[in-house]
Amino acid sequence: MSLQISAKEEMVEKFLDSSARGDLATVTALLSGAPSLINRRGDNEWTALMLAARNGHHDVVKDLLLRGCDKSLVNSSSQTAYDIAKFWGHKHISTLLTPVDDRGQQIPPGFELRTQEHYFGRETLDRLSVKRTDTEWLEAKQKNPDSVYLLFSNLIPMVSNQPGDGEEGETKLYLLRYEAVQDLLQKPETVLIFLGVKRRNISSSLTDVNVEELPAWFAISTDEDTAELLKRCPEKNCCFPEKAFRDLLKLSEEDAGVVAQARSVLAWHSRYGFCPTCGSGTKMEEGGYKRSCLNPDCRSLNGVHNTSYPRVDPVVIMLVVHPDGNHCLLGRKKIFPAGLFSCLAGFIEPGETIEDAVRREVDEESSVKVGAVQYVSCQPWPMPSNLMIGCLAVATSTDIRVDKNEIEEARWFSRQEMIDALYRKAAPVLTVPPRQTIAHQLIKHWIGVSSNL
Amino acid sequence: MSLQISAKEEMVEKFLDSSARGDLATVTALLSGAPSLINRRGDNEWTALMLAARNGHHDVVKDLLLRGCDKSLVNSSSQTAYDIAKFWGHKHISTLLTPVDDRGQQIPPGFELRTQEHYFGRETLDRLSVKRTDTEWLEAKQKNPDSVYLLFSNLIPMVSNQPGDGEEGETKLYLLRYEAVQDLLQKPETVLIFLGVKRRNISSSLTDVNVEELPAWFAISTDEDTAELLKRCPEKNCCFPEKAFRDLLKLSEEDAGVVAQARSVLAWHSRYGFCPTCGSGTKMEEGGYKRSCLNPDCRSLNGVHNTSYPRVDPVVIMLVVHPDGNHCLLGRKKIFPAGLFSCLAGFIEPGETIEDAVRREVDEESSVKVGAVQYVSCQPWPMPSNLMIGCLAVATSTDIRVDKNEIEEARWFSRQEMIDALYRKAAPVLTVPPRQTIAHQLIKHWIGVSSNL
Ligand SMILES: [Zn+2]
Ligand SMILES: [Zn+2]
Repeated sequence: MSLQISAKEEMVEKFLDSSARGDLATVTALLSGAPSLINRRGDNEWTALMLAARNGHHDVVKDLLLRGCDKSLVNSSSQTAYDIAKFWGHKHISTLLTPVDDRGQQIPPGFELRTQEHYFGRETLDRLSVKRTDTEWLEAKQKNPDSVYLLFSNLIPMVSNQPGDGEEGETKLYLLRYEAVQDLLQKPETVLIFLGVKRRNISSSLTDVNVEELPAWFAISTDEDTAELLKRCPEKNCCFPEKAFRDLLKLSEEDAGVVAQARSVLAWHSRYGFCPTCGSGTKMEEGGYKRSCLNPDCRSLNGVHNTSYPRVDPVVIMLVVHPDGNHCLLGRKKIFPAGLFSCLAGFIEPGETIEDAVRREVDEESSVKVGAVQYVSCQPWPMPSNLMIGCLAVATSTDIRVDKNEIEEARWFSRQEMIDALYRKAAPVLTVPPRQTIAHQLIKHWIGVSSNL
Repeated sequence: MSLQISAKEEMVEKFLDSSARGDLATVTALLSGAPSLINRRGDNEWTALMLAARNGHHDVVKDLLLRGCDKSLVNSSSQTAYDIAKFWGHKHISTLLTPVDDRGQQIPPGFELRTQEHYFGRETLDRLSVKRTDTEWLEAKQKNPDSVYLLFSNLIPMVSNQPGDGEEGETKLYLLRYEAVQDLLQKPETVLIFLGVKRRNISSSLTDVNVEELPAWFAISTDEDTAELLKRCPEKNCCFPEKAFRDLLKLSEEDAGVVAQARSVLAWHSRYGFCPTCGSGTKMEEGGYKRSCLNPDCRSLNGVHNTSYPRVDPVVIMLVVHPDGNHCLLGRKKIFPAGLFSCLAGFIEPGETIEDAVRREVDEESSVKVGAVQYVSCQPWPMPSNLMIGCLAVATSTDIRVDKNEIEEARWFSRQEMIDALYRKAAPVLTVPPRQTIAHQLIKHWIGVSSNL
């Protein structure tokens, strides 16, 4: 057994080595015998494609691509083969490896910044907002047996737990049909949101699908007794998770994307039942995307006002990079678990740009001054309805003075300390937020970008 | 006279020509006689620096920089000398011309995207938010004779009109002192906002200034009779402009930045006087940045909720680029003046990323599909409190079908048509929004970027 493993390891090493040396004959011979070698990784998670790209072996790169190797893989510095080819100036190779966006489409020149997809950010539904005002269509869809309902109690969705490979099994949104929620739809306290229709598969033909005929998804919010609600799940493996933050992060990317939309809109209904302009009651309209004042004399009914529409709060979250380029600034709040540090963040204020909000928040929380700011990517965060706008920021000063009202401590950490924390090397000096957070991904992004400079 | 002009023009031409040829001796000789030549422009607005950068004349570039030429100037394609050097591959020159950010700081490698400053985007005040809860300090500042008050009626600021060089003279915010508004501050209907303190000059020493001692700025909103209010201006050249949109765009960049903050917060107070969670009245707190429910049993008083804080609505605004790279997609609403086309735009929905909001809005309004999306810059837009997030987007389809509810017409325009419209060449096929809008600046940005590809 140990002999076999050793032989296998030797073969991987030989394959990676021949890719690095540009020995095409050996590469193809090895792959013919063992096609699964193609995406194997060596030191620092480098693949054959990365090694060939590093050393400018155009023919090996081309052959590996033709055989379907995964060009989206990253090494332990978060670099793709494309990043490596570009960094080492092999233009004829980086052209072969032109980056693709989060939908698999080639990104044209000048658009090289890939936007990363974050947890809560996947759009699996087509919102089909044009149908929100089509009451007839919406009512027909409600009764359609193909339609899907998510059930929320106290802003928490009903989920099912299935035993799985992992320690804790799999947590999935529990999907109900019209029959199972028909009684709830009759009750005046029930809030019903039209979420959209299930997106067609990208690979299927676009022209012969009528989106209006695809299955509709709805979210229901009810304050009925949760024990009673759980009886609607015949498999008896359902629950309403008690810790929203921790338990919602166990969902799949697809489910998390739906929850981001549903929970944000439901949270708005739960706090915005009265007209802020006159204090009267309101009624729900447009598939759950509008509340109109019931007072016919209210100013909010003249013209269009944001008082009638769901609220989205833009937040800046930033990784501040030290002027030396090798350290980053993280802070911790008192409520954080021991050892946890994260990116600084704060709400964008009225009349403020993203870039100035970054500078103001960093100054307020740590007294560090910021010059250049670069947008990286964003993440919807449905607690209750934030849009987290992720940036890298370059410090122009280094002295830290913490505003104790906002955070408990802020510190500069070295790149190596961050790599250790991200990849959970032995005894890291800090822990970072989980991978589902944009804070985690911003740190990872910086490690990747900065190693290219 | 005509002879003189001709001699001058000849000298400019000689200066530009010698810079383009790399003839350092002639360049320095001409500049010694006529230093004002240094930033003069020739065909297509090219400067000597751009011409030398274009042709790789390192010594001329260095000399022009030492003599203080303006490296931030752009040619008629919106390219700086840096852009030109980079495009033509003169690395030793682009290094000399390293771009600077909107605060004049050098941008480190990897941060080459300059973020542009837009109208309404300048932060002239330090918001000093930590002082919003310091009632004692705020009250002392109110009575301080150095403090400045802006007066708003119906969300319009009082301005003074001064005869100036331009056709229409100069429009300035009218600044009042405590004495002139003391009576208004006694009235319970008056809304008072603390805007911040006047930022210290960047060039002045940072260490010996106590920001808390700088002059405080406040905004007052009142529904007193406007004719009476105008009596507070002894020069009698004040007014409350009638057309908010058109007239606010006449302010200086500095004044516009202050108005963006003040108007957004005041608009929130004017529409959010009641608690959306229970319908009760609210009271203002924290220097005008919070409203708390007066009902002691209200849920909104348990924990922190967005119902108590000013609202900022994130909006995506995008220039969609044709797959051929040479056309862009613009649309017009029925209410637009004849011939005016602008970028597509729309509110970001709950649970949505910036990039997906761009894709959804473009699809909804025009049926055009979008792949890659790139953030460019953003602009606060205080009508009432939007954050316009400007992006370039690459179309993956070209057929246009317009949603008539949203826009009247959408069309692909060629790059040349856009250049003609931007620089008002003879008989452009369209007009574009004014320079104060991010739509205008996005178009300009695309012209600049695309000419580099
Ligand atoms: Zn009302
Ligand atoms: Zn209340």
